[in-house]
Amino acid sequence: MLHLVGLGLADETDITVRGLEIVKKAERVYLEAYTAILLVDKSKLEAFYGRPVIEADRELVESGSDDILAGADKTDIAFLVVGDPFGATTHTDLVLRARELGIQTNVVPNASIMSAIGSTGLQLYNFGQTVSMVFFLDNWRPSSFYDRVRENVQIGLHTLVLLDIKVKEQSMENLARGRRIFEPPRYMTVAQCAAQMIETEETRKEGVYTRESLAMGAARVGAPDQKLVVGTLQELTEVDMGAPLHSLVLLGRRTHDLERDYIRQFAVNEATFDASYQKSYGASS
Amino acid sequence: MLHLVGLGLADETDITVRGLEIVKKAERVYLEAYTAILLVDKSKLEAFYGRPVIEADRELVESGSDDILAGADKTDIAFLVVGDPFGATTHTDLVLRARELGIQTNVVPNASIMSAIGSTGLQLYNFGQTVSMVFFLDNWRPSSFYDRVRENVQIGLHTLVLLDIKVKEQSMENLARGRRIFEPPRYMTVAQCAAQMIETEETRKEGVYTRESLAMGAARVGAPDQKLVVGTLQELTEVDMGAPLHSLVLLGRRTHDLERDYIRQFAVNEATFDASYQKSYGASS
Repeated sequence: MLHLVGLGLADETDITVRGLEIVKKAERVYLEAYTAILLVDKSKLEAFYGRPVIEADRELVESGSDDILAGADKTDIAFLVVGDPFGATTHTDLVLRARELGIQTNVVPNASIMSAIGSTGLQLYNFGQTVSMVFFLDNWRPSSFYDRVRENVQIGLHTLVLLDIKVKEQSMENLARGRRIFEPPRYMTVAQCAAQMIETEETRKEGVYTRESLAMGAARVGAPDQKLVVGTLQELTEVDMGAPLHSLVLLGRRTHDLERDYIRQFAVNEATFDASYQKSYGASS
Repeated sequence: MLHLVGLGLADETDITVRGLEIVKKAERVYLEAYTAILLVDKSKLEAFYGRPVIEADRELVESGSDDILAGADKTDIAFLVVGDPFGATTHTDLVLRARELGIQTNVVPNASIMSAIGSTGLQLYNFGQTVSMVFFLDNWRPSSFYDRVRENVQIGLHTLVLLDIKVKEQSMENLARGRRIFEPPRYMTVAQCAAQMIETEETRKEGVYTRESLAMGAARVGAPDQKLVVGTLQELTEVDMGAPLHSLVLLGRRTHDLERDYIRQFAVNEATFDASYQKSYGASS
């Protein structure tokens, strides 16, 4: 059987008891390590599980899935996913491939950023669709996120923005020359995301939000040192939220007073928070 | 310290290792038992934790929170929540009250239906706002959900519908007479939800969806006997998904081909699925 096991968000102890039992008895244990990261090293996971863990990069999962599935018709293979196996990145391809090969699958859910973002105090009912923000390059500054954000803004809903991570990426030169040399990992910060959002608004000029729009920055959600801030996008371009992973939530105007009362404690500056809030938020529908 | 510990969705083994360690050493352990349920009895939790568990009903949490928090400035109190502590039902009130009393809080995330619904194969990025469906009464058939669904439908997004549960409810008569006699628990089924959705469309007649619109029913998400079906709303009025809890997802027209390929295996009837899909779904934006 193929077991897709969610690891949760922070460290080795965020696995569920059910998940841990599976990992301990599995024949092989893979860790999907290219769309998200835990805040601890693989060696810490191995020590905790008492088992070797095989890192599965994008190439292995997308092209070598039959290697992962080898023998899974007779023994148990565990495929570990940071967060939830069907969260921000879904692994339906692997499940479909297993089905084709007559291999049974079992999913062990866990916390995903897409629900744990509720720990900001913003209600999950008030979120619209989630968007992704990629690192802008000199000649590639995609603004498709902006159209999705507009759809949420028009309704008055919050938007969760998931921030790009670059793990095991090759430079164009190394890629062209076929050298398996990888760049150091990079994780987008809340400040970078806020700056890219402002740039996009000032390029597109469609008034979806402004520098004074309120947003929350969230770092290391679910970890003991989780950090939250709320401020204007302009203010967020200057916050330092510390180590990865970061996420951002653009507030919708339907923000409820109970949400405001909760998030205000995280304000970069209570005066600018109150001023922006009073001007543009708290609409009941 | 007040620890809000998510229990996940199915049984006693869905708690995280981090959460279990907290429960084992806490001075008192409360279980929030009125907005969601695990699929196992309290006694099973107590045996697993080796600790007594105090059931916290709505009255205790909303009016007696100071009893829950008593002593939490000096010792550890665990407050267990099915799913995630900030998922479908948030416990920000309790956290704010703790702060007022100078009590530190710690949150242990876990799977929530709001992310675990990704196990349907529908991508969480393609969901709009979540809505709730209450049991209709003779003289109270609220259709506010319908307006929210319309907002999602206009964009082309999926809608997760969370279904009503009635736990420890009193009849009007017992309430009036002050008798603490409670009705048996009731859990809305996918079939009931689909029927109420059709009724609302046929009352409001605004064309948000039809009897032929596709929806997925999901039962016991995250449990080993999780069950998924996809069919028209009409077909879903006749499905039997078994034991609670149930949820429903109304498909948005932006459904991606990869989502279709995955969910089709759960079709009540592949012919009606294909016919409805071809007519109304698969729009890329």
